[in-house]
Amino acid sequence: MTGLFISFEGVDGVGKTTQVERLRGWLEARGHTVVVTREPGGTALGRAIRKLLLHGVAEEPSNAASVSAAPGGSADSASVPADIAPRAEALLFAADRAQHVAETIRPALERGEVVITDRYLDSSLAYQAGGRELTAAEIRNLSMWATNNLLPDRTYLLDMDPALSHNRLQHAEDRMESAGDDFQNRTRQAFLDLAAAEPDRFRVIDASQSIEQVWQAIRQDIDALLKETVR
Amino acid sequence: MTGLFISFEGVDGVGKTTQVERLRGWLEARGHTVVVTREPGGTALGRAIRKLLLHGVAEEPSNAASVSAAPGGSADSASVPADIAPRAEALLFAADRAQHVAETIRPALERGEVVITDRYLDSSLAYQAGGRELTAAEIRNLSMWATNNLLPDRTYLLDMDPALSHNRLQHAEDRMESAGDDFQNRTRQAFLDLAAAEPDRFRVIDASQSIEQVWQAIRQDIDALLKETVR
Repeated sequence: MTGLFISFEGVDGVGKTTQVERLRGWLEARGHTVVVTREPGGTALGRAIRKLLLHGVAEEPSNAASVSAAPGGSADSASVPADIAPRAEALLFAADRAQHVAETIRPALERGEVVITDRYLDSSLAYQAGGRELTAAEIRNLSMWATNNLLPDRTYLLDMDPALSHNRLQHAEDRMESAGDDFQNRTRQAFLDLAAAEPDRFRVIDASQSIEQVWQAIRQDIDALLKETVR
Repeated sequence: MTGLFISFEGVDGVGKTTQVERLRGWLEARGHTVVVTREPGGTALGRAIRKLLLHGVAEEPSNAASVSAAPGGSADSASVPADIAPRAEALLFAADRAQHVAETIRPALERGEVVITDRYLDSSLAYQAGGRELTAAEIRNLSMWATNNLLPDRTYLLDMDPALSHNRLQHAEDRMESAGDDFQNRTRQAFLDLAAAEPDRFRVIDASQSIEQVWQAIRQDIDALLKETVR
């Protein structure tokens, strides 16, 4: 593969979208073909999965339900919306990622293009493994299988205190966003731990700086990265 | 866990549903609480996943699509329905199974009930690994993780020549059913290979016999199984 694969990570509201678009414009001006994408929901299948993950399954009562139980059993278990089990959630995120890689990311890289994704597997590691009951190793194995071992060439972690993030309440209705400050702080630390474990791939950028300062830090790094990449 | 977990397997149209209901009635008459369920689609989440798997993603064109591409890129890739990638498909089946186990099967077994499922992980092994591009070991690892290593106490494989099956055209509109005779024959053989590999768990039953003969074979076996199970 001859393209370049870049991911942006960090908790909600640190300014990833702004920097993604800035980087897109800069790369296009230098003649690169750029594909900007995101997780979850980077494909049509992924958006359908994202709906399930964010809003749960709101099924109308139906006689076609194929689960039943004997008297005394859990007769209602199939006809009411239920919480998504942790393993099911992890597998749905992985399915989204598998489709995203197969349909969007890998074909673009094979055409020699630059792919920028707003969140990738580190978000699963930070949010699911950092905040919930599965181990980081399990989540990572799942993602590596889903993507057939595709890791970004560079990952920009935009890091700041979640309490200071710009638009943290913007998606307050979303399921993933409602878990509170402790969860956000644990997730931030999980991202920092991931970055520390893979210093070659990660660049940690202080996102409490101005948008311009954050962008300059990214621009310097990507400039160097492009120079060292034989393309 | 003190319950009993039974799965029925076999290609479409061999009479699984009939035998599942017969077994349910017989067990209930003997005082057992029985939960009858199925895959894919044994839970509300599973049914939502099943819709995606059978009918694909039919998304209306939307300006909210979050993927875009530079001129010359694959600008349409996100706004049109696309084939589901093999790894994404396997992960979706696994997510269905994970939810099914966590929400329905494991709680019933923990209450000491009998769970009968129409298809379980062997179907994934036979259909996906037997017919498609992933290895059986990969699919099995995925399912074992999804279920936290829950295997049935007994699996009845209803086996017959697919060309003779009773209602093979019933679900002809379904995506999984349209792959033709070669696929059905390969799948049948994959089921037989799975049964040969785990003779303690599997019972292979000749489903070309009469419904009554098939049922008697199952009844004899379940009778013996219940006697040897300390419950």
